[in-house]
Amino acid sequence: MRIGIIGAGSFGTALGFNLGKRDNQVVLWDRKQEIVDEINTLRTNARYTPDCLLEGDIRATTDLHEAASGKDFVLLAVPSHVVREMCEKVRKFLDKETIVISIAKGLDPQTHGRLSVTMEEIIENPVVILSGPSHAEEVAKSMPTTLVASSRNMAAAEKVQDLFFSDTIRVYTNDDLIGVEIGGAVKNIIALAAGILDGVGYGDNAKAALMTRGMTEIIRAGEAVGANRDTFYGLTGMGDLIVTCTSMHSRNRRAGILIGQGFTMDEAAEKIGMVVEGIKATKAFYELKEMMGIEMPITDQIYKVLFLGKDLKEAIKTLMLRDRKSE
Amino acid sequence: MRIGIIGAGSFGTALGFNLGKRDNQVVLWDRKQEIVDEINTLRTNARYTPDCLLEGDIRATTDLHEAASGKDFVLLAVPSHVVREMCEKVRKFLDKETIVISIAKGLDPQTHGRLSVTMEEIIENPVVILSGPSHAEEVAKSMPTTLVASSRNMAAAEKVQDLFFSDTIRVYTNDDLIGVEIGGAVKNIIALAAGILDGVGYGDNAKAALMTRGMTEIIRAGEAVGANRDTFYGLTGMGDLIVTCTSMHSRNRRAGILIGQGFTMDEAAEKIGMVVEGIKATKAFYELKEMMGIEMPITDQIYKVLFLGKDLKEAIKTLMLRDRKSE
Repeated sequence: MRIGIIGAGSFGTALGFNLGKRDNQVVLWDRKQEIVDEINTLRTNARYTPDCLLEGDIRATTDLHEAASGKDFVLLAVPSHVVREMCEKVRKFLDKETIVISIAKGLDPQTHGRLSVTMEEIIENPVVILSGPSHAEEVAKSMPTTLVASSRNMAAAEKVQDLFFSDTIRVYTNDDLIGVEIGGAVKNIIALAAGILDGVGYGDNAKAALMTRGMTEIIRAGEAVGANRDTFYGLTGMGDLIVTCTSMHSRNRRAGILIGQGFTMDEAAEKIGMVVEGIKATKAFYELKEMMGIEMPITDQIYKVLFLGKDLKEAIKTLMLRDRKSE
Repeated sequence: MRIGIIGAGSFGTALGFNLGKRDNQVVLWDRKQEIVDEINTLRTNARYTPDCLLEGDIRATTDLHEAASGKDFVLLAVPSHVVREMCEKVRKFLDKETIVISIAKGLDPQTHGRLSVTMEEIIENPVVILSGPSHAEEVAKSMPTTLVASSRNMAAAEKVQDLFFSDTIRVYTNDDLIGVEIGGAVKNIIALAAGILDGVGYGDNAKAALMTRGMTEIIRAGEAVGANRDTFYGLTGMGDLIVTCTSMHSRNRRAGILIGQGFTMDEAAEKIGMVVEGIKATKAFYELKEMMGIEMPITDQIYKVLFLGKDLKEAIKTLMLRDRKSE
């Protein structure tokens, strides 16, 4: 297969590495000339995938035309807030049949909507969302990983399943595109909250309870916007949540730890130095909850801590002392 | 309230500590005289709950009569394989109205059945199962913890909810007793498997996938024996699973790590020096699966590794290369 990958960050390079090993023709685009040169001369991308030697038919380029035209698949390996821009830029190069894949997890910062909706407004190609519990660092080391391909066009999703399927990457399809995308975005709220608990110094009992009860309320919100609850319990929901809440790779969790230690939301975001999707997601889902009257006590308290300066321990006490309930 | 706690291990003592702080009369039974003496003279139980000072009306005894008679609640804080014996021993001391609580997670080793069934065969009192993600170490430090009380007698479960509810312990009720007990037992299979992956040296992606897909098949088994799938996604299922799979406190996980490093099942069990519930649960659920024709690919491979000497990496490859599926 001929594959263009837009963005030679850690996940783009790691997937390129896996595809290159298996008889595909891969072109990796990046805007940074030095990364492109390193890949083409040394076959490495030391900053993003240390220890990973790019074998097979992989070349890098700074030319979007070269990376996007004449391809079976174009993979957008860029963060949520760049997806719109990249779709606009590659649009004119795409063949009609090219399947466009995105790995971004989050909402469109402009519309607060799902990214596949944004993509489909700009390009007419089949759009597939690739999600699941997948640290790029481990994919780059060929450690066993599962992914989920979802789309309004399930034939395209199955082609993506076939493309990545190997003895180290197991790919499932899921036809609940809404659930897959919402799950990928909202898990960041819980990861942020899990980090806050870590930062405050609470333990595993509290974190497990947060993750479990957090899922419960997020499913309420997901169902309100048309998602299937089972999707949240799958790899793109619970699976990704577990990876995110227990790993220091997650910048949402790292931001939460800083907030738990007493930094403000803005200070934490500045220290992380990258977009903290969980903060945006908290705001978006708080608004959804208010609009639709959904019971989301954890999101409510996180919102009050982040945006209204509520004392953290007070917020936790509010959650612990709510009315006695059945599960 | 007047409460008898049978077993001054870490969980029994931690719950006694929490109850003693709040105006209850607590009698802690243990068979070891030195533990009883330490509690009565120094107000500590250094081996099981270091750093925990037992305030309030708590006394310890080696006399079962004193611990079990004239009580509102008797809490069995003993492992699964001792529950039957303890029910037989306390039976004659119980008042008719005494609510008997068990915190054991596992199956009756004699019948392979649920422990509440065993308990109700022996005693006529209301039986409540207390479960959820709760390391005793953290309960003893008053760190926020959630518990779930379940029973065929929901009035009794609600009394247990009221008994433990505080600003650090939040208690839910759940009327799906089958799901609560099965979830507590089968999570140990996945914890064992998660440990195996850790021992082999695989990463977070694989572990998150295992936990998620493991839940999927365990729910199939749970539903086959009458449990409600939602219970598995609650605190006693997913919540407890998360705590167990990510903590070194879990002896199931520790046993798995040893097996992943190349020790046999028997060697691992010997090194842990305690009952490894996950091994028993694997066998019980493998048999259930065979009998009822349920698809449980992970349990199947774990069984083959544990009991038939299948090579671990082969087993993982089998799982990764199964037919392409939707979630």
